[in-house]
Amino acid sequence: MSDATIPTESAGAEPTGTEAEVNGAQAESAGAGAEVTGAGTESAGVEPTGTRPAPAESAPAESAPAGTGAAEPGLTEDETGLPPAALTDEAARLDAADRLRAKRDAFALDDVIYLDGNSLGALPRAVPSRLADVVAREWGQLRIRSWEESGWWTAPERIGDRVGRLVGAAPGQVVVGDSTSVNVFKAVVAAVRMAKERGAHRDQILVDEATFPTDGYIAESAARMTGCTLRPVAAGDIPSAVGSRTAVALVNHVDYRTGRLHDLPGTTAAVHAAGALVVWDLCHSAGALPVGLDAHGVDLAVGCTYKYLNGGPGAPAYLYVARAHQPGFDSPLPGWNSHADPFGMASAYTPADGAVRGRVGTPDILSMLALEAALEVWDDVTIEDVRAKSLALTDFFLRCVEDYAPAGRVRSLTPAAHTERGSQVALRCADAGEVLAELVRRGVVGDFRRPDVLRFGFTPLYTGFAEVERAARVLAAVLKEG
Amino acid sequence: MSDATIPTESAGAEPTGTEAEVNGAQAESAGAGAEVTGAGTESAGVEPTGTRPAPAESAPAESAPAGTGAAEPGLTEDETGLPPAALTDEAARLDAADRLRAKRDAFALDDVIYLDGNSLGALPRAVPSRLADVVAREWGQLRIRSWEESGWWTAPERIGDRVGRLVGAAPGQVVVGDSTSVNVFKAVVAAVRMAKERGAHRDQILVDEATFPTDGYIAESAARMTGCTLRPVAAGDIPSAVGSRTAVALVNHVDYRTGRLHDLPGTTAAVHAAGALVVWDLCHSAGALPVGLDAHGVDLAVGCTYKYLNGGPGAPAYLYVARAHQPGFDSPLPGWNSHADPFGMASAYTPADGAVRGRVGTPDILSMLALEAALEVWDDVTIEDVRAKSLALTDFFLRCVEDYAPAGRVRSLTPAAHTERGSQVALRCADAGEVLAELVRRGVVGDFRRPDVLRFGFTPLYTGFAEVERAARVLAAVLKEG
Repeated sequence: MSDATIPTESAGAEPTGTEAEVNGAQAESAGAGAEVTGAGTESAGVEPTGTRPAPAESAPAESAPAGTGAAEPGLTEDETGLPPAALTDEAARLDAADRLRAKRDAFALDDVIYLDGNSLGALPRAVPSRLADVVAREWGQLRIRSWEESGWWTAPERIGDRVGRLVGAAPGQVVVGDSTSVNVFKAVVAAVRMAKERGAHRDQILVDEATFPTDGYIAESAARMTGCTLRPVAAGDIPSAVGSRTAVALVNHVDYRTGRLHDLPGTTAAVHAAGALVVWDLCHSAGALPVGLDAHGVDLAVGCTYKYLNGGPGAPAYLYVARAHQPGFDSPLPGWNSHADPFGMASAYTPADGAVRGRVGTPDILSMLALEAALEVWDDVTIEDVRAKSLALTDFFLRCVEDYAPAGRVRSLTPAAHTERGSQVALRCADAGEVLAELVRRGVVGDFRRPDVLRFGFTPLYTGFAEVERAARVLAAVLKEG
Repeated sequence: MSDATIPTESAGAEPTGTEAEVNGAQAESAGAGAEVTGAGTESAGVEPTGTRPAPAESAPAESAPAGTGAAEPGLTEDETGLPPAALTDEAARLDAADRLRAKRDAFALDDVIYLDGNSLGALPRAVPSRLADVVAREWGQLRIRSWEESGWWTAPERIGDRVGRLVGAAPGQVVVGDSTSVNVFKAVVAAVRMAKERGAHRDQILVDEATFPTDGYIAESAARMTGCTLRPVAAGDIPSAVGSRTAVALVNHVDYRTGRLHDLPGTTAAVHAAGALVVWDLCHSAGALPVGLDAHGVDLAVGCTYKYLNGGPGAPAYLYVARAHQPGFDSPLPGWNSHADPFGMASAYTPADGAVRGRVGTPDILSMLALEAALEVWDDVTIEDVRAKSLALTDFFLRCVEDYAPAGRVRSLTPAAHTERGSQVALRCADAGEVLAELVRRGVVGDFRRPDVLRFGFTPLYTGFAEVERAARVLAAVLKEG
């Protein structure tokens, strides 16, 4: 797709029940999602001088010196050159009415306005002490005994069930472990094998053409190793592109760059109608909005846990295999942890029943138990409340940017319609690299996507409306100076 | 192979330079490796009542109640029923002369005699404070900035080089990440692809028939996905089995069950002479003895880091790709972390040069940086000193067992010859499950391999000779009572 068409591209389906449920009063009170528009931003992006591409899908530019990330509280009219904002009053009202507000105390935060939780979630305060105990007592004192006595061996399924609750999966269908990329490989290859059982002529893998790249690379490898061809298609066009030769479609629930929410129920139904399977990548939706894997009959899904699930840098990913598919799940990575009798040490492989079949090697216990502690924060939270606040936050940010930013400097790539929006706002900006570096210097952390995209993620568990208003004000000041 | 032949099976090659180097005075002073023999142990193994197979290749039996793992210091003749051991004097002399003795202080240990470091290494004292800093400051305060500012992004190569030093690999050839199983998949598939470049008729994968099972399962999957057949062969027979149809041989450097050390230089040379490639699994040799990957021209290797490298439960594994093979390394798991320009977010995959090509997804930072801290203990240690002490420890244990244990109760599966021995002793014992559970109760931790094997691992960095003598004495007492 061309860049210019992104904001108005059809999402391929009307609002569904899943989304409609959460577009309630709280979200709507923040407005219907104003579109920030402008002219003159379609020029070729400039590669910022001194700004190196940053890791983990993000990270501030290298040119931001350490120690300058502190916020600038009490930003005044003199500093911003903008009139006092009436929106600050609205932010205060929204914060006062925010039923998730107290959750912020469960995270280690400071004066920095952290709008990069869609890349790396903030540290939940429960993690340090739990991890210290895992290291000092479970590993240091119990050592090998902890595989049983501390429940290490069963951690992938136990934590998988915790993740499952957040993505609408009943217990016994999710295992945690490996990276998202490795899980994409398992899921796509296994899906192709199941599809070929239905008909050997199914030899095409459809992939969301705007996918986060690793999914495409891994799907290409899966295609090569299963005798299939890979066919990139816009996510919204998958329902019309799927056909009798389709084995599986690999789709992102939310686009990592634009924040567009794709139609999971409609796409899943269309893929099923064609007799194929679907694998959803939930990296940018899990923990931000309802997914409803079971409710919508999804076949397989994968996702990371270090974004909205706050599991820590490179925390283990997860794999969902719908119960009905578990007996047929034929993993390309049949490691000993997925064996029916792993300690029998048999030379022949016999897969375990259930979600365990998605495991491979020895689980990465330190990272995995940090994730488990991080997930405790969700115990008394509903994903519907999270979604409502997420939409209110992104609506409010778009309104603030529209109100404050100089005309023509930024343009939103994020859909205005709630049914098509994840939990981030992407703004096209010709000098996005320089702008992001300056934002970081002033204590507003978002990220930069080459060549010209500013990305701001909104994490309902710890982001407040006053922060959102202030971030927009700082952004406007930077844009005005730039 | 039949069980009975294991102790006398030919290793397929004479002692090599690598091993000869370390069979010096220190090792020899402990004796030439007595063989513990006995009759009546070839009966079928009994599955111990109440003893469930334990995880991570080991762990004490479930029947050992928590809190009873404390040692019984001051074990006397009355308790053991054995005469006072002259071997205690020898143990004291060996400990006094042990140049690695001070290293024990670098680990969190107690009165338990921990002979299971070949399953899960003990906690290095440097880990807890380092990991606390990674969590609280690098993640908690710097958050996304740490991918650059804290060196997270380059950790897989940086830590890979540290591991490389211990296995004889020059910098730039090892990356840390994923599990051993996943790395076996990468290595075997990539090796097959390179072999097929040499000749499309190369369609066989040889695998060590006594391999730790996951290698065999994964090799079978690799064979299936590359159009090859898998051919299990005794490790010692690989030099004669390799031929013009061989693509790759996957071999364990040390057998996980018997502790037998296979002939890496000779086998590698034989595989190369046949025009094939070899992948070595170093799980049970890295950190216990010299490997010499570069010196012996090994093609590819994998290994875990949670045994003799003490990286922690499920710590990331590693992949070695010899420099000469890096341009041809064609990974079946081409995740975005292995892309030449990972932040370009290109839809087409272009592999990076160098060891980075072995990466896949976002690295598991918490576990990885715990491993990095754990590896500091090696900074002033030579692997030759470690090997010398390892042989002295296993020699001494075998002598003590021979001296103390009731006749006919146990029989060693571990080769007597130093050139064929890793860093563990495996004893066949009909009631191994019950014996192990009782040992754990008395503060001696080894592990049990179904149906009838007791495994004791000797970690030269923290195991002393007095402990070895005491472990043998407790074992003898248990065997006498059983």
